[in-house]
Amino acid sequence: MKLLRFGNPGEEKPGIEKANGIRIDCSAFGEDWTEDFLTQDGLNRLTTWLESNEAKCPEISSEVRLGPPIKRPSKIICIGLNYKLHAKETGAEVPKQPIIFMKSTTSLSGPNDDIIIPRNSEKTDWEVELAVMIGKKASYVDKENAMDYVAGYCLLNDVSERDFQLSHGGQWVKGKSNDTFSPLGPYLVTKDEIKDPQHLRLWLKHNGKMLQDSNTSDMVFDIPTLVSHLSNYMTLLPGDIISTGTPSGVGMGLTPPTYLKEGDVVELGIDGLGTSRQKAVNYKG
Amino acid sequence: MKLLRFGNPGEEKPGIEKANGIRIDCSAFGEDWTEDFLTQDGLNRLTTWLESNEAKCPEISSEVRLGPPIKRPSKIICIGLNYKLHAKETGAEVPKQPIIFMKSTTSLSGPNDDIIIPRNSEKTDWEVELAVMIGKKASYVDKENAMDYVAGYCLLNDVSERDFQLSHGGQWVKGKSNDTFSPLGPYLVTKDEIKDPQHLRLWLKHNGKMLQDSNTSDMVFDIPTLVSHLSNYMTLLPGDIISTGTPSGVGMGLTPPTYLKEGDVVELGIDGLGTSRQKAVNYKG
Repeated sequence: MKLLRFGNPGEEKPGIEKANGIRIDCSAFGEDWTEDFLTQDGLNRLTTWLESNEAKCPEISSEVRLGPPIKRPSKIICIGLNYKLHAKETGAEVPKQPIIFMKSTTSLSGPNDDIIIPRNSEKTDWEVELAVMIGKKASYVDKENAMDYVAGYCLLNDVSERDFQLSHGGQWVKGKSNDTFSPLGPYLVTKDEIKDPQHLRLWLKHNGKMLQDSNTSDMVFDIPTLVSHLSNYMTLLPGDIISTGTPSGVGMGLTPPTYLKEGDVVELGIDGLGTSRQKAVNYKG
Repeated sequence: MKLLRFGNPGEEKPGIEKANGIRIDCSAFGEDWTEDFLTQDGLNRLTTWLESNEAKCPEISSEVRLGPPIKRPSKIICIGLNYKLHAKETGAEVPKQPIIFMKSTTSLSGPNDDIIIPRNSEKTDWEVELAVMIGKKASYVDKENAMDYVAGYCLLNDVSERDFQLSHGGQWVKGKSNDTFSPLGPYLVTKDEIKDPQHLRLWLKHNGKMLQDSNTSDMVFDIPTLVSHLSNYMTLLPGDIISTGTPSGVGMGLTPPTYLKEGDVVELGIDGLGTSRQKAVNYKG
């Protein structure tokens, strides 16, 4: 199943994309896609509900804005330097344990919303990532059982301001949390639809030029390892996002380094998880 | 006004502590203390409501458990090394810009709840801190206007696992986010009750021995500077917690270093913000 949310920012309604690509409005189900929805076995309840109600759900125009496919989760946790080539391009060693940092949840935006270049930013950069969404409360979970706690996957652009991240007095969260820095979606794809999440092509184009083009098979730490590892350090809640790191090809790693300027367009995609497209605009305050 | 939440974990009801120290149940007001409550001018509405309803509110026994005085906020942002002597004890330089990191909101607990020492932890440590609660959505706020965005203050123990924080593959969030690592309260004290938040004694005792004893006047970056600075890097929402750093005297800085073990008790307090007390217990999984 592919779950999405559509409508104006802050007023999104729940919907799904059917196998034929048609998007339908599931407002009649009576719930938004939230932590509570996932906690209360919402994916199974929705599947059952759709069996008798899908035909009555209104179709959504493909012109309608998409929001993030989950209403504000409790946290967004990112994994740093989790692709070997990306670690190399940043000049860092391949990590021995997963590097984790957070993005503020206020950074969430729709998959095709503009990226707002923050005030005083000169180094706003892109990062295509496979985001894992937690489906069940997870604390001290074994690697062997970790996938039981996963609801599915989304496409994420982990937008990053490199000066804010690296030169403004540290911790990386500083360069990861501005508004619109987490375009998520187009949809949450439930895990049953992705046979092998460690064998998906992921790519990103900047102004039409392919700059990131890799495969999730190159991850240093795979998804079960990450879920298990993280669950030792914090309780993961349904809806929580774990973004599993980006492959090489970010702007910071190019020669010369290249960053987003007003009017630039990034397009990105992952096999089975759809594509997204963002235009960069300057902050106007 | 002093706002508190009481009852079993996850089932807390809203209340206040009156000037005479009596705690009353404000469930009849019909709202919990949340982001929405603050967004919708809740503090002023509650003040008006109490004028005609306070006498009818049931008294709460002092034996009743307190929860954190805000229901899960969107984020908890902490400031690192914001007291000069604490920077020195950790061997770090006094920062030129505020160091920020996040704690997961799942770490929130009541002010007198047990601190659960995580599995495989040998270095669970304490940090008494003044936490600022945001009252109004803040983005790109000037220092001069920053206090308009503050709702009030709380006492926080920024519990920290030093190995997880510093030796498990970085960023500090890893050592800050386990369950029960953010005992908050006893209450939110609205800013009108605290004449000068930069002149408050804060202290912490470990097993009865005074180990942290300082004053918020020793902060490197004051509250308006922190609110303004942070608002350049992310949007602050009502209910968000900014914990302003800890003074010297943490377990890591002692000779020899001292960490929490089962049965230990920490007591802490800040002038005007009350006191809290936590017992350390081992994780039992």
